[in-house]
Amino acid sequence: MYFIIKKDKLLEKLNIVAKAVSTKNLIPALAGIKFDLNDNGLFLTATDNDITIKAIINNDDIVSKKNNGSIVLPGRYILEIIRKCPDEDITFELIDNLKVLISTSNYKTNLNGIELSDYPNIELDENDNFVVLNSKILKNIINQTSFAVSLSEARPIITGVNFKIEDKILEVTATDSHRLSTKTVELIQSIQKPVNVTIPGRNINELKSILNDEDEIKMFFFENKILFKFNEILFQTRILNGNYPNTSKLIPVEFELAIKVGLRNLYDAVDRISLLSNDYKIKISISGNILTVSSTVIEVGNGEEKINIEKNNDINLEFTVNFKFLTDALKIIEDENIIIYLNGEDKPIIIKGENDNRLTELLLPILTN
Amino acid sequence: MYFIIKKDKLLEKLNIVAKAVSTKNLIPALAGIKFDLNDNGLFLTATDNDITIKAIINNDDIVSKKNNGSIVLPGRYILEIIRKCPDEDITFELIDNLKVLISTSNYKTNLNGIELSDYPNIELDENDNFVVLNSKILKNIINQTSFAVSLSEARPIITGVNFKIEDKILEVTATDSHRLSTKTVELIQSIQKPVNVTIPGRNINELKSILNDEDEIKMFFFENKILFKFNEILFQTRILNGNYPNTSKLIPVEFELAIKVGLRNLYDAVDRISLLSNDYKIKISISGNILTVSSTVIEVGNGEEKINIEKNNDINLEFTVNFKFLTDALKIIEDENIIIYLNGEDKPIIIKGENDNRLTELLLPILTN
Repeated sequence: MYFIIKKDKLLEKLNIVAKAVSTKNLIPALAGIKFDLNDNGLFLTATDNDITIKAIINNDDIVSKKNNGSIVLPGRYILEIIRKCPDEDITFELIDNLKVLISTSNYKTNLNGIELSDYPNIELDENDNFVVLNSKILKNIINQTSFAVSLSEARPIITGVNFKIEDKILEVTATDSHRLSTKTVELIQSIQKPVNVTIPGRNINELKSILNDEDEIKMFFFENKILFKFNEILFQTRILNGNYPNTSKLIPVEFELAIKVGLRNLYDAVDRISLLSNDYKIKISISGNILTVSSTVIEVGNGEEKINIEKNNDINLEFTVNFKFLTDALKIIEDENIIIYLNGEDKPIIIKGENDNRLTELLLPILTN
Repeated sequence: MYFIIKKDKLLEKLNIVAKAVSTKNLIPALAGIKFDLNDNGLFLTATDNDITIKAIINNDDIVSKKNNGSIVLPGRYILEIIRKCPDEDITFELIDNLKVLISTSNYKTNLNGIELSDYPNIELDENDNFVVLNSKILKNIINQTSFAVSLSEARPIITGVNFKIEDKILEVTATDSHRLSTKTVELIQSIQKPVNVTIPGRNINELKSILNDEDEIKMFFFENKILFKFNEILFQTRILNGNYPNTSKLIPVEFELAIKVGLRNLYDAVDRISLLSNDYKIKISISGNILTVSSTVIEVGNGEEKINIEKNNDINLEFTVNFKFLTDALKIIEDENIIIYLNGEDKPIIIKGENDNRLTELLLPILTN
């Protein structure tokens, strides 16, 4: 293996692949990044057995090359070495199949490889059951749902984000059983076979972190894994075992009261009032055309703030809610005004953007008696 | 106590005073910020018995006021409440001498005070033994020395930054016994009585964090404390007990070899080579007109980088040094080129900027045999 490459081309792809390098020390080979130089270009692969990322650097982006070859290099070191390399062409030379000599004009380093035969061989083939998504849309879907996954391993299936596709309709849901966020998107093409799969929350967020706004993403569905393909990158993740709860029946369709309120006003009021709150609890009271956010910490003090609202009828109501869950929900709504749908102090609260019917936020109130 | 004040005026001063709020829970009153409204304005005070900060908001910056009065408010809460307040005029009203009602048009909060009689009465008077320093110069002095203080309590006196003033000469020094940084500044006016005092490292850095570039600072020296006065702020710190070591005799005056090297080149090379280093050790070899930085981690690999230098004679030398201490020293030198003065592999290394004789960095080499 011998090649010369521009620093920025290599670093860009290394930064991406490094996200799949294992940080656990169980299998030494998984702490490595595999370099494969072949006739098609340079292929970089990393896997922690949970996600696998492969990035391709085409021959066009390689300054020159002599011999094909492979080596697994320690991920932590190779990324930092390239990051700090002088901004020049970098030469990689495999020596005795054991180590690489990395050099620029005044700098050189020898880095020992990790046993190549220990590196897992992970299949990253495509199949016919796929959808195509624009990167901005996928990033938005992940932003608007993944925050709501459960962080507790008590019920592993809800630590993931659920993707359900039938024909042209993609429905993405996350819940931790206290709150839920669900987003519906219409696809350009129908899927061959309907899917209902749940992707670990951490994995879908790693994917988000490497998406560019311009990418077009192909998402291939397999029995126990999903492969994302975009911009010379393959990203594969396992899916969670088990059936995702049928959340659609949790969302009420009729409401006693709907109120309209400015998103920014409500967010800022909750943010202020929550400074004096016990166990994340804040009270929301709706009386006439005023919504009051209030909270008390005995010994320290209390606060309240009033906001003007519009209502669809004369019903007054009050309920207690986790302010963290409420601000999480408000953060990802893009409308100027929101509609809050209510059915009494102990019933689920539904929040939607005034002009967006595709994103639904559900919060369970905290019962105070 | 009743006053109305603009949010930004109050927040600016609260942010400063809050740095002296105690984070230990030993004395509840010290977790508070004292508000004193009197005929001269609003005075905010906080102390953790180590540093004391008092900030003055003049009557000109108070929108309106009715009754004078005092209260101690919990520092953690009052700062966050004001930070998150709507950007409006804020009304403070003392109620029953026990709590304040803080309000804007739609928002109000009651915050309970901390027992006023428990709050320590700390003297912040001036005296005649002072110097005047420009804020930029003082910040620079702190930047160029405080990084070198010892973090170990084994020898408390060297956890501080030493200020020595005689006539018009201020000499500021910090050392952890492995490296030393010393800066000399000529003052505008002489001091009345010479001083030799050591300020705790943490305290001098808190001072730095609240200095503006435009301030003119008066620094008053007392037997066991120092008072800094600038821009309606009083900052007082205790000084460390004990005699600061006489460091000037540690700095050699004659050298076998002096080399000149580009600061950026050396910094970048050390930064790169240190990626593969054991126990912070890197080797520097000077041979002919080449300086080589090198390092090895057995099992992982090794690196080296060469830099062109100028020398004052034909002597060749090599030594091992802590790369963290070397980069710390290089970071605070402002010249384009540095001069490294050497006396053999086991002797102190002196580094200065090519054109700056007022800042001296000393590093002890690591003995490898």
